[in-house]
Amino acid sequence: MKNSNELIPLKIIASGTALPENKVYSSDLDLKLNKPSGFVEKHSGIEYRYHSDYEASQAKLAVDALHNTLETHQISPDSIDLLISASAIPIQALPYSAAHILKVSRLKAGTACFDINSSCVSFISALSAASGLLATRQYRRIAIVSAEMASRGIDWSHQESSLIFGDGAACMIVERGDGQSGIVTYKHETYPEGLELCEIRAGGTRKNLRAGMEDSDFLFQMQGKPLFKLTASLIEGFTERVLASANLEMSDIDTVVPHQASHLGLKHIRKRLNIRDERFVNIYRYRGNQVAASIPSALHEAMMTDRYYGRDYVMLLGTAAGLSLSEMILKP
Amino acid sequence: MKNSNELIPLKIIASGTALPENKVYSSDLDLKLNKPSGFVEKHSGIEYRYHSDYEASQAKLAVDALHNTLETHQISPDSIDLLISASAIPIQALPYSAAHILKVSRLKAGTACFDINSSCVSFISALSAASGLLATRQYRRIAIVSAEMASRGIDWSHQESSLIFGDGAACMIVERGDGQSGIVTYKHETYPEGLELCEIRAGGTRKNLRAGMEDSDFLFQMQGKPLFKLTASLIEGFTERVLASANLEMSDIDTVVPHQASHLGLKHIRKRLNIRDERFVNIYRYRGNQVAASIPSALHEAMMTDRYYGRDYVMLLGTAAGLSLSEMILKP
Repeated sequence: MKNSNELIPLKIIASGTALPENKVYSSDLDLKLNKPSGFVEKHSGIEYRYHSDYEASQAKLAVDALHNTLETHQISPDSIDLLISASAIPIQALPYSAAHILKVSRLKAGTACFDINSSCVSFISALSAASGLLATRQYRRIAIVSAEMASRGIDWSHQESSLIFGDGAACMIVERGDGQSGIVTYKHETYPEGLELCEIRAGGTRKNLRAGMEDSDFLFQMQGKPLFKLTASLIEGFTERVLASANLEMSDIDTVVPHQASHLGLKHIRKRLNIRDERFVNIYRYRGNQVAASIPSALHEAMMTDRYYGRDYVMLLGTAAGLSLSEMILKP
Repeated sequence: MKNSNELIPLKIIASGTALPENKVYSSDLDLKLNKPSGFVEKHSGIEYRYHSDYEASQAKLAVDALHNTLETHQISPDSIDLLISASAIPIQALPYSAAHILKVSRLKAGTACFDINSSCVSFISALSAASGLLATRQYRRIAIVSAEMASRGIDWSHQESSLIFGDGAACMIVERGDGQSGIVTYKHETYPEGLELCEIRAGGTRKNLRAGMEDSDFLFQMQGKPLFKLTASLIEGFTERVLASANLEMSDIDTVVPHQASHLGLKHIRKRLNIRDERFVNIYRYRGNQVAASIPSALHEAMMTDRYYGRDYVMLLGTAAGLSLSEMILKP
């Protein structure tokens, strides 16, 4: 076990979430997809998820989570000196999403901002970068927002991936704190042999008006079996390296906050890593996979259900398109 | 003047650039656009810029700059423990660009990586984040790569913006160093009233197959006059705040490395901020505006022409789609 002077100081002082209005029950999808009653819930493990309508704005969804956080915790918008947008999918190719979010927010014009992106583990990368920016006193109070509208890229002809996604946003506000809380250890590893197993090919220089594109390039493409196989081959060794770097065992971790990738993915990770069910935060049944918004949404849930503050160790854990693995152990 | 114990430690240990093969002279564009001889050079201030063909890969361009840097400085690829992609335009919507770059690079599988995006000043944001990650010992040696293929989004029907862009990439490798070099001061301010003045609307959740899109959404849209007006109204006050935060005057800065936005933009900034011509790094005539790759490319040029190491203060300076202003004063 590391002693606290080896911590990278970081204190989460506030959190909040936002969801679109439109709740989509799995029974609604049974009808939409011409499936027998109960089919979608059985195959997805989801009772309902939320989907935005096609006119809704991702920036507005992000700001709903940001404002919810500021209001609930009575934090002045003017006290935020950096806004980090930590989402997998951007609002548009240029400019960056944080500027769009700033525009519709109550944060003051002139606030510093940028985007961090490591697909579904963007929030963990943002926490890591934030801890460094706070330690070097470049900023005092940072808002990190993850907002996703995966519904806009669902390929309804692909059964497996079409059932699992939900939209949503979450926000965390962080400071340096007094050094008693922070990052115990953190690792991110990317294995690009899995790059094509999860992708949306349009959106940048690869597929566009000049280089050529087709409709499927705008939709989420997933190869479930090889993705599962590659993840399964890496996750145990990776987790061993993370725990060993902090001289901890999985049984020392009070709460594990995983990316809410899929019903079976969550089950597999929990068993494979020997995590006790009551320590494993699972909001998948009522949210689905919210891409980069899943980890901060589940972390918010852990906070609301008394599984964060006052605990010794909390682990954030995710696998992400890339293929990337990311784990961070926090001392709350 | 700040003393060195107030520096955020940061040492640039290596740099390199890459360009596509295809050199496009302004005289070539005179022909392409049916203009009289000399028209494009006169209006753009560019003799030639480089454009990739439509099959070329942005990840490959990034890797050319990365490998050029590693080879020139005889740095082992295995010694890089974090790769940051710092470009304005992504390769595709999912996954993030750094994973694509890692895939075609000689860096080892498992290397940590993420993207940072603040449009044309992404490289400065990446330096700021890198300094924090190095100070907290999360990483020891970080490669930052900016690679842009703006040619793929040129709207040839819009004269002003179609003439100015060039493709290219640059890489810098940074470490913590011994504390004698680093960041003296840094500010980033975003004024989203200027959000729509520079944009590519497709690429994310806003314009796509579900939300609707048209051809123009894939092309760079710029409103030159209001953009110039907004920038001009902000740049002097911003620069005063940056210099004052370090108790410096512009005359203390040995080398200024600006974003290579445009012929007239560079001229305006240099005059407005009272920067002596020989201290102002200008590679625009032979590169054009390389979006986020401009600042590191110009910084590399400053290094190659003996205007970086051994100097007291070097300023990186850029305005960017957002509208964002960013300035960093480095002690080399």
